[in-house]
Amino acid sequence: MKGYAMLKIGETGWIEKDRPVCGPIDAICRPLAVAICTSDIHTVYEGAIGDRHDMILGHECCAEVVEVGSEVKDFKPGDKVLVPAITPDWNSLEAQAGFSMHSGGMLAGWKFSNFKDGVFGEYFHVNDADGNLALMPEGMSLADACMLSDMVPTGFHAAEQADVQFGDTVLVIGIGPVGLMAVAGANLRGASRIIAVGTRPVCVEAAKKYGATDFISYKNGSISD
Amino acid sequence: MKGYAMLKIGETGWIEKDRPVCGPIDAICRPLAVAICTSDIHTVYEGAIGDRHDMILGHECCAEVVEVGSEVKDFKPGDKVLVPAITPDWNSLEAQAGFSMHSGGMLAGWKFSNFKDGVFGEYFHVNDADGNLALMPEGMSLADACMLSDMVPTGFHAAEQADVQFGDTVLVIGIGPVGLMAVAGANLRGASRIIAVGTRPVCVEAAKKYGATDFISYKNGSISD
Amino acid sequence: MKGYAMLKIGETGWIEKDRPVCGPIDAICRPLAVAICTSDIHTVYEGAIGDRHDMILGHECCAEVVEVGSEVKDFKPGDKVLVPAITPDWNSLEAQAGFSMHSGGMLAGWKFSNFKDGVFGEYFHVNDADGNLALMPEGMSLADACMLSDMVPTGFHAAEQADVQFGDTVLVIGIGPVGLMAVAGANLRGASRIIAVGTRPVCVEAAKKYGATDFISYKNGSISD
Amino acid sequence: MKGYAMLKIGETGWIEKDRPVCGPIDAICRPLAVAICTSDIHTVYEGAIGDRHDMILGHECCAEVVEVGSEVKDFKPGDKVLVPAITPDWNSLEAQAGFSMHSGGMLAGWKFSNFKDGVFGEYFHVNDADGNLALMPEGMSLADACMLSDMVPTGFHAAEQADVQFGDTVLVIGIGPVGLMAVAGANLRGASRIIAVGTRPVCVEAAKKYGATDFISYKNGSISD
Repeated sequence: MKGYAMLKIGETGWIEKDRPVCGPIDAICRPLAVAICTSDIHTVYEGAIGDRHDMILGHECCAEVVEVGSEVKDFKPGDKVLVPAITPDWNSLEAQAGFSMHSGGMLAGWKFSNFKDGVFGEYFHVNDADGNLALMPEGMSLADACMLSDMVPTGFHAAEQADVQFGDTVLVIGIGPVGLMAVAGANLRGASRIIAVGTRPVCVEAAKKYGATDFISYKNGSISD
Repeated sequence: MKGYAMLKIGETGWIEKDRPVCGPIDAICRPLAVAICTSDIHTVYEGAIGDRHDMILGHECCAEVVEVGSEVKDFKPGDKVLVPAITPDWNSLEAQAGFSMHSGGMLAGWKFSNFKDGVFGEYFHVNDADGNLALMPEGMSLADACMLSDMVPTGFHAAEQADVQFGDTVLVIGIGPVGLMAVAGANLRGASRIIAVGTRPVCVEAAKKYGATDFISYKNGSISD
Repeated sequence: MKGYAMLKIGETGWIEKDRPVCGPIDAICRPLAVAICTSDIHTVYEGAIGDRHDMILGHECCAEVVEVGSEVKDFKPGDKVLVPAITPDWNSLEAQAGFSMHSGGMLAGWKFSNFKDGVFGEYFHVNDADGNLALMPEGMSLADACMLSDMVPTGFHAAEQADVQFGDTVLVIGIGPVGLMAVAGANLRGASRIIAVGTRPVCVEAAKKYGATDFISYKNGSISD
Repeated sequence: MKGYAMLKIGETGWIEKDRPVCGPIDAICRPLAVAICTSDIHTVYEGAIGDRHDMILGHECCAEVVEVGSEVKDFKPGDKVLVPAITPDWNSLEAQAGFSMHSGGMLAGWKFSNFKDGVFGEYFHVNDADGNLALMPEGMSLADACMLSDMVPTGFHAAEQADVQFGDTVLVIGIGPVGLMAVAGANLRGASRIIAVGTRPVCVEAAKKYGATDFISYKNGSISD
């Protein structure tokens, strides 16, 4: 199968690889829509996670299931599914302790385009399909479904980690996709004032729509002032 | 001064009392708008908190400050204030441990019309004014301000105690004022499905407006079915 | 294989059953030491979990692994293992949300002698072996290992759920094995006063050893007095 | 009265000051035993909290109450008391939200030798006496009582903040007094392995006594190796 890969630090290209093999609790999927992430850029050009050779990139997509293992209960070939960027081993000590993103080691719950081939190939492998996939709700667009891989949950998780409470004032530094979703998440949890740091007019417009009430431009001096 | 009081279990009436005395960290207020609570009914007719004699009723109001103690920093006579139903002693062991409503004993943070005269008098006493009052925001109606004593925070607190998370399904049993505010609070925290139990058409309409998505009538059989 | 079973509510006996089959992430074990639990009594004589027919009893043991599935990484035949009474499906929604004991439904993480045959047979089946077994530490006695199935973790979990803090006063009602372990757990978390309710001299002695500082006998009147 | 003070950054000495005045909820105390803290050194010689002029130093002591305000309920002149280094305003928004150490601003719950004169004087002032003092238990030595101001609670609080659980492995970096108390706190919460980083033989001995099981010397290379 074909895949778009990191060849080594600083270099990308199309490569040929064998189709991944499906274990008894796993699934093989083919992407329906994919999106790039700044992390793909960091991975390739900054070597943020160290060197990788001929590793297929990508961890944001929605997909169709093409094969499932013998023990998979909730999915069958043909199902359209949401695919999270983070696919933990749920029976690991870390996940059992509530840190699923760190299953198997720090941030090792992030497997696609990190410890194994990502989703920018004809097919990709999902470990623990019952634990890590979700059926795409009827009527959801592929674009929306794709944004649920990483942009929406990462921004929302920030609002959860910040433990935003009714009436809180929240500062969101940066209003790219994840920052915008942090604005939306803080708003959804009942923040009364959401201060966004950013300048691009399209992002400022989007942030307003998602609930930002105040804006600071880092071009006008230090944020803390 | 005049006050509307519980005379004994099962009996209420207007009585005369001395104006309360203001300690160094306290305030004396006069009510601007008051509301009754089902708890007033329970207190008088069911003796829910035991017997009380000539105790002025009421714990929901907004008010004007008429006197403050020497150590009060944040308020002065003439200020319009929000008055919570629960006015803890914030330096008690219970409040220090995070259970302010139980300062001094189980539910003993509730003082108005429980351990001391309530707000249905010409004047009433507020312990720890800096800790227990808030300035009424410009432009807020007296009716809205009054609802912030008990109905809104009690319902919202239910959503906080239930630790409602993004996408949760929430069941709210009863859609009187507090139940309606529990619906609103769950909605504000990002619940995706809110099932309300209740039947009065006006309450069902209000619950819909506050975010309830499904309704169950206890008249149609047991709720759990 | 032979097993000691609940035949129906109120009746027990030895029965013959097929040896359980090992799935790809599972293990088959044979018990090295077993213990009964009051829950076995409740199950059989009170029908506490409903009727069961020819279900092998028991959920407390330590064991030797005799077979593992193809995907099991941490265990191999011959390993001596600790076997918890509760063996959740770690990839279930409930376990992902932090409620592993309720994986698949209320208390459905409890599978042995509830939803499947228990450990009072020649062999028994462990779902998700990597997630649910632990290697028995070198030098641990079989008796100690057996107590780690249920008595110790249930009592300790009570101390965790009660969120015992340094210097707390803790009341433990009942000082059978689980209560004694609740005393030990509260002590281990730094409680300064542990009041135990119980009367049997041997239990009182044990409770003292585990850290109880005060005793109340329910034979002397109501506990709350 | 006399007090040992920071005259300015880099300079200390004895000065004369008026005895502090007691407000209605406050107390005036005289120290019975005092201890210095590395923070006193940072304050004077590194200017860690900014410049201060003629500010009496010290925030670790036990004391005798010599005067109380009209509203103080729990203490009277002659009482021997534990005095915490941190004396929050318990009715502040920050303390109400659970961050008492930050009452009034970041770390502003720390008042002695920071925002007001400390305890190295003939007398010192305690805000909110009922909220901030504790009676010294019968039979406690002055030396022990003095260590309860800062060294013990700061180390124990580290173990609380780290949310140490039964069986955890804990790394304590530095085994001066606070680090030693972090070892003791982790041990008291049920950690099974406590790795201490430090080299002075007397501290290593003390750490062993308090429960450290392993030691790393930073002189032998990087700690993470």
